[in-house]
Amino acid sequence: MQKIDARQLDLTHDVEGFIDRQQPGFTLEQPFYTSPEFFQLDKERVIFRQWQFVDHVSRIPNRGDFFLFTIAGEEIIITRGDEDKIHAHFNVCRHRGSRLCLEKQGRKRRLTCPYHAWSFELDGRLANARQMPDGFDPNDYSLHSCQVRVFEGLIFIYLGKEEEAPDFDYIADNYLPWIAPYKLADTKIATVRHFPTPANWKLVVENFLECYHCRPSHPEYCSTMGHVTYDGDGTEEGMEKYRVMYNRWLEKAKAQGRKVGYFEPPCPDQSLRVSRQVIKDNAVSTTQDGGPACKKLLGDLTDYDGGDAFFAFGENLYLLVSDDYVALLRFTPLDTLESDVTITYLVHKDAEEGVDYEPDRVAWLWEVTTEQDAKIIIDNQKGVLSDRYRPGPYSKLEGNCETFIRHYLKMLSAAERPTSKLNINPDDYTGEAIFSI
Amino acid sequence: MQKIDARQLDLTHDVEGFIDRQQPGFTLEQPFYTSPEFFQLDKERVIFRQWQFVDHVSRIPNRGDFFLFTIAGEEIIITRGDEDKIHAHFNVCRHRGSRLCLEKQGRKRRLTCPYHAWSFELDGRLANARQMPDGFDPNDYSLHSCQVRVFEGLIFIYLGKEEEAPDFDYIADNYLPWIAPYKLADTKIATVRHFPTPANWKLVVENFLECYHCRPSHPEYCSTMGHVTYDGDGTEEGMEKYRVMYNRWLEKAKAQGRKVGYFEPPCPDQSLRVSRQVIKDNAVSTTQDGGPACKKLLGDLTDYDGGDAFFAFGENLYLLVSDDYVALLRFTPLDTLESDVTITYLVHKDAEEGVDYEPDRVAWLWEVTTEQDAKIIIDNQKGVLSDRYRPGPYSKLEGNCETFIRHYLKMLSAAERPTSKLNINPDDYTGEAIFSI
Amino acid sequence: MQKIDARQLDLTHDVEGFIDRQQPGFTLEQPFYTSPEFFQLDKERVIFRQWQFVDHVSRIPNRGDFFLFTIAGEEIIITRGDEDKIHAHFNVCRHRGSRLCLEKQGRKRRLTCPYHAWSFELDGRLANARQMPDGFDPNDYSLHSCQVRVFEGLIFIYLGKEEEAPDFDYIADNYLPWIAPYKLADTKIATVRHFPTPANWKLVVENFLECYHCRPSHPEYCSTMGHVTYDGDGTEEGMEKYRVMYNRWLEKAKAQGRKVGYFEPPCPDQSLRVSRQVIKDNAVSTTQDGGPACKKLLGDLTDYDGGDAFFAFGENLYLLVSDDYVALLRFTPLDTLESDVTITYLVHKDAEEGVDYEPDRVAWLWEVTTEQDAKIIIDNQKGVLSDRYRPGPYSKLEGNCETFIRHYLKMLSAAERPTSKLNINPDDYTGEAIFSI
Repeated sequence: MQKIDARQLDLTHDVEGFIDRQQPGFTLEQPFYTSPEFFQLDKERVIFRQWQFVDHVSRIPNRGDFFLFTIAGEEIIITRGDEDKIHAHFNVCRHRGSRLCLEKQGRKRRLTCPYHAWSFELDGRLANARQMPDGFDPNDYSLHSCQVRVFEGLIFIYLGKEEEAPDFDYIADNYLPWIAPYKLADTKIATVRHFPTPANWKLVVENFLECYHCRPSHPEYCSTMGHVTYDGDGTEEGMEKYRVMYNRWLEKAKAQGRKVGYFEPPCPDQSLRVSRQVIKDNAVSTTQDGGPACKKLLGDLTDYDGGDAFFAFGENLYLLVSDDYVALLRFTPLDTLESDVTITYLVHKDAEEGVDYEPDRVAWLWEVTTEQDAKIIIDNQKGVLSDRYRPGPYSKLEGNCETFIRHYLKMLSAAERPTSKLNINPDDYTGEAIFSI
Repeated sequence: MQKIDARQLDLTHDVEGFIDRQQPGFTLEQPFYTSPEFFQLDKERVIFRQWQFVDHVSRIPNRGDFFLFTIAGEEIIITRGDEDKIHAHFNVCRHRGSRLCLEKQGRKRRLTCPYHAWSFELDGRLANARQMPDGFDPNDYSLHSCQVRVFEGLIFIYLGKEEEAPDFDYIADNYLPWIAPYKLADTKIATVRHFPTPANWKLVVENFLECYHCRPSHPEYCSTMGHVTYDGDGTEEGMEKYRVMYNRWLEKAKAQGRKVGYFEPPCPDQSLRVSRQVIKDNAVSTTQDGGPACKKLLGDLTDYDGGDAFFAFGENLYLLVSDDYVALLRFTPLDTLESDVTITYLVHKDAEEGVDYEPDRVAWLWEVTTEQDAKIIIDNQKGVLSDRYRPGPYSKLEGNCETFIRHYLKMLSAAERPTSKLNINPDDYTGEAIFSI
Repeated sequence: MQKIDARQLDLTHDVEGFIDRQQPGFTLEQPFYTSPEFFQLDKERVIFRQWQFVDHVSRIPNRGDFFLFTIAGEEIIITRGDEDKIHAHFNVCRHRGSRLCLEKQGRKRRLTCPYHAWSFELDGRLANARQMPDGFDPNDYSLHSCQVRVFEGLIFIYLGKEEEAPDFDYIADNYLPWIAPYKLADTKIATVRHFPTPANWKLVVENFLECYHCRPSHPEYCSTMGHVTYDGDGTEEGMEKYRVMYNRWLEKAKAQGRKVGYFEPPCPDQSLRVSRQVIKDNAVSTTQDGGPACKKLLGDLTDYDGGDAFFAFGENLYLLVSDDYVALLRFTPLDTLESDVTITYLVHKDAEEGVDYEPDRVAWLWEVTTEQDAKIIIDNQKGVLSDRYRPGPYSKLEGNCETFIRHYLKMLSAAERPTSKLNINPDDYTGEAIFSI
C-alpha cells in the first residue's frame, strides 16, 4: 500500500472555529481529515471516549493467553487472567517504560519485562521488582489498564477516564434481544482478513456508511444484496421494488419468530443502530450464490429465514450477521493518515473447516467489497490532501454520513462532557420493528 | 535517489525579517532552501504566480486524451476537450474530494469519479450527479480549473488567481519572432528523460543558471559548447577567444537571415530571456561530435548556421534549441526538498526514429549534463542542511543566480502585488542583436 | 532495523518547567526522550559542549588521509594535515554550501569542492576560488572547523564555542597515569562493529550505565564478568562473594604494580570515571573462555594480572581495556530517535591477524552484549513513546543512571554556563585505589 504523507504546517488550527464554521450537509473541512492536531483531538475526545472492540474471546481461551492490539499509537495487551477474567493493559513497563510483550500473541504465566525483569500479574499488579529503594510501594506501580467488557463473546475496551465511559450495560441491554439468538460466545474464528488503509479513519467510516457508491464500485455486493435496488440508486422504482421484496420476507421472518426492522437506541457518546432485513429473493446467506456459508447455523437457529442483521457499536465496529456466519468489521484509527481495517469471520464453534465451511466462501462478500473500498478510500484521501479540496454536499443517499459527522463534531466540540449515564428506560426501545424504508 | 529529510523546528520563522536581512550578492539564508514554511510561501507567491509549462501538445492529440501533471503537491488533469481546446483541472472531485483520474494518462469521454460516479465534461462542468438534495445547482460544482495557454505547441498553465496572472500575450509577442522559425507546433516528442532530484527547487534553478561549475563538473558540455571558453573560466583570454568564434559565426548567421544576440524583455513576475549564439567552430548541432542530431531540420529552416537558441520562461522552463532538435528542460518544485527535472526532446514531426534520428543521440548532451547536475544539487542540498551553512558570495560568473535571487525575493516579499499588465510597447524590444558578451 | 517515528505536536514544550518538575530518582519525562525540540537543546547544550571521540589515529596515518564522522545532523571531515596535525572541518563549502567530501574516507592533497572547485588547504584555509568579485578576502572563507585533541591515539573533537570547551588538559592529566601503560597510540584497529539503534541517545547511555539488566538480558556477559555477582543482583551475598574475588586479585595486581580501584575526577561538563577491577577468577582477558584475546599484550605490559579497566569520557565514549585488547564503545546521537553505536577494537600495532588474534574472538563479548542491548533499547524507546509512559523509579543498582540524569539536567538547564576551567590540583586525585564496592 502506498504511504501518504501528513500535511505540514498544521499546528496552528483554530479548532473551535473550524467546528463552528462546518456547514451542515457537507463533508468536513480539510484539517479534520489531514491534520495531526485534529487526530490528537479525535483520539482524546472520540476514540478514547468510546468502547472499542478488540477481538473475539476465542483468541485467548486459556489463562495467560494474550495478544496485542494497536490503536492510535497505543499498544494494548489483552490477556485472560484468573477466574477467566479478561484484562487489558498498556504495553509499557512501569519501571523504565520498555515494551513488556514483544510477541504479537502467546501465553505467559506473568508479564515479565525483558529489560530488568519487573514482573506483573496477569491482572496488572506488580509482582516482583528487585532491589528497589526503601519506601518503594509496589501498589503504586501496577500496569496502566483499560476497562474491559465482554459481551456475547466480543471483547471491548475503554481507553479513557473510567468515569466518562459510555454506559455499557445500557448498550448490552438494548442489543441483547437482537443478538442473543446467534450465541456469539459459542462461535469460533473461521478466518481473518486485513486491509491496511493509509487514510484518515473518518474517510473509512464515511465510506462504509453509505451505499451511494455501491453501484459504481461494488458489482459483487450489488448482485448479493437486495437493498441496493433502492439505496444504490435512490429512485422511487428502486424503493418500491425493495419494499415488495422486503414485505414478502417480512411475513416469513415473523412466522419464524425472527427479529425484523430497524432500531436506534439513543446514546450520546456511542452511536447505536441495529437492523434486520431481507438479503434478496431466494438467498439464505450473504454468499456469492445466495446459498449457505456454513452447514451449521448459528446459536439457537433451526432454519434460515433469508434475512441478515446489522449492528453498529459506535463508528468503529459493525457486525454483519447472516444466519450461519458473522463478519465483524473493525475500523481502527492508527494515525492521522493511517487506519487498519480487519474483518474477523465467526462460525458456529462446532463447525469443521473443509467439512461444514470453506474460509474463502465465508470471507467472499466482505473481502471483495472491502478490497474495493480500501482503494477508493486511498484515492479519496489523496484528493482531500489537495489545497483545492473543499467540503462537498452529501447526496440524499448519504444521510448516514451526515449523521456521523454531526455526532462526531458534537463529541469533538468539548473536552468536558457530562457522563453518558442515560435516564432512559430500555423498555421504551424494545426493538419493535421500526420499518424505516 | 536518496531521500533527504526536511528540517525540524522550522515553523516560527520571521519571514519578512529573513527577506530584509538577505545580503545582496550572496546565496540565500538556510530556511529559504530547507523550511516547509518557506516552501509554502514559494508555492503561493512564486510558483502559482507564474505560467508553468506542462508538456507538448502532441501528448494529447485527440479529444478526451489526458495526462496528469504534478506540481507542489497538486495533481492537475491536462485534457483536450471540444474544438481542440486544452483544459487543466485539479484532480479533485467536487463531491467528496476523491481523485478523478487514477491513471497517469489515457483517453476519456467524460471525467467520471470512480467513487460515486459524479461525471464532469472535459471542460470541467458537472454533467451528472445522482440523487442530490433540492436546491443543488450543478453550476456550483464545476471542477477547479487552471488557466491554460498554448504557445507554439507548448502547454502552459497558471494555478493562481486569474487576475494576477502575468500577461501571456506580452510574453508570446516578444518571443514569437525568435521562436517562430522552429515551428514547435509541428514537432513531436523524440524521447523524455526524468531526473528525480531530492532538493529544493531554487538549488536546481541556481545550478542551471551559471556556468561557473561547468569546468569542474561537465567535461561533455565543455567539449560541446564554445561559450565555455569564457564563462567556464571568466578570463580575458577566454572572453577574447569566444568573441572571435562568435563574430565569425555572426557573419554567417546574419547572411542566412537568422536571429542572433541577446534579448531580455522586462517582465515583473516571470523572468524572460532569449539568446542565440554560436555552438562552437564547425558544429551544426549540440551533439557529441557536432554533427546533426536529426536529418530533418526544424520548421522553416533549410540549412544549419551553427548557432543554438536559449529561451527562459520564468525559472522553471528553459528551451535549448538547435536547428534540428529542442531540449525542453522543465524544473518542477514538488516539495521543500523534492524537485522533478524532466527533459522532453522534440524533433520535426515527420522525422522517423531509427532513420532520421536516434533518441539517445538527440538526448546525449542534456542527459549526461543533467545527470551530473542532479548529483551536484543533491550534495549541495545536504551541505545547506548543516547548522553551519552560511550564505556564500557569488562569483563574477554567477550573475544570473544573483538576478534570480533578487527577483525571487521581490516576488516573495509581498503576497499582494499589482497585476503584471505592462505598459510597454513590445516593438521597443524587437530583438535587435544585443551582443552582451 | 525498524524506524521509529518521532512524536508529533511537540513544539511547544515548556522546557524549563520540565526540568524543574523532574523528580529525582526517576527516569526522565517523556519529551526528553521523544521530542525534536529537546533533541535540539541536547545538541546545543550537551552534545556540542563536550569533547566527542571520533576514532583512532591509525585510520588516517598519512598526510591528506581523511574520513567523515556524523553526529547530530552534522558531517565532519577528519583529516591529517601538515606536521601530522589532525584537523576537523564541517563538510560544507563556504561558497554555496555543497558537501566537499563525498566519499566516506580517502586521501586528498586539498579539499576541493566538486561543485565549483573552491579548494581548501587541509587546515581549512581557502586556497583557491576563481573569479571572485573585488573585495573578496579568502581569509573570510576558511572552513568552519572544530577543535581537535589527540590523546593517546584517540581523536576528540569539540563542536561548540571554543571558549566553552571543557579543559582537555585536565582530563588528560587525570587519565594519563591510568591509561599510559597501554600505549594506545601504538595500537591498531583489529575490527569495527556497527549497531544502528533507532532510539534517543539517552536511552542508549542509560542502558550502558547499569548492570541491573545484566542477569535478565546478558548471559554471555554474566558468565564472563565477576562483578555481576553483586551488581547483577545487588544482594549482600553477591557483594561478599565479589569482595573475596576482588581482594584475591588486588594482592596480585598490586604486586605487579598495576593500577587498581576507582577514581572520579570532578569535571562540571564532562563526566569522568575510571576504574580497574578483577575480571573473574582465573580469567586473563574478557574473552569467551577467559583466555587471551591477543598474543601480544598492550604497551608496556609484560604479564596479565587478571584485571580490566574502564574509562568514561563523558557519556558518549567508554573504553573497556583488557591487558591485550581495547573495546572503544562510542554512542553517537544522530537524531531525536536515532543513535549510532560503534565499537572499535584495538590491539597491539605489531599483532598479526590470524596469527596473534582473531577479530571475532576479540569482538565477541561486546558484540554479543551490544546486539542484545540494541534490541532492548529499541523496545524501551517504543514504550516510552506511549501516551501512558510515566517516569519510573530507579532501583538501587541504577545509581549511575541517576547520576547521569542529574548531570544531564544540569547541563540542559542553562544555555550560558561558566567555563569549565577547574581550580583543582590534579595531584589531589592521583588515583589511589578508591575501593568503592
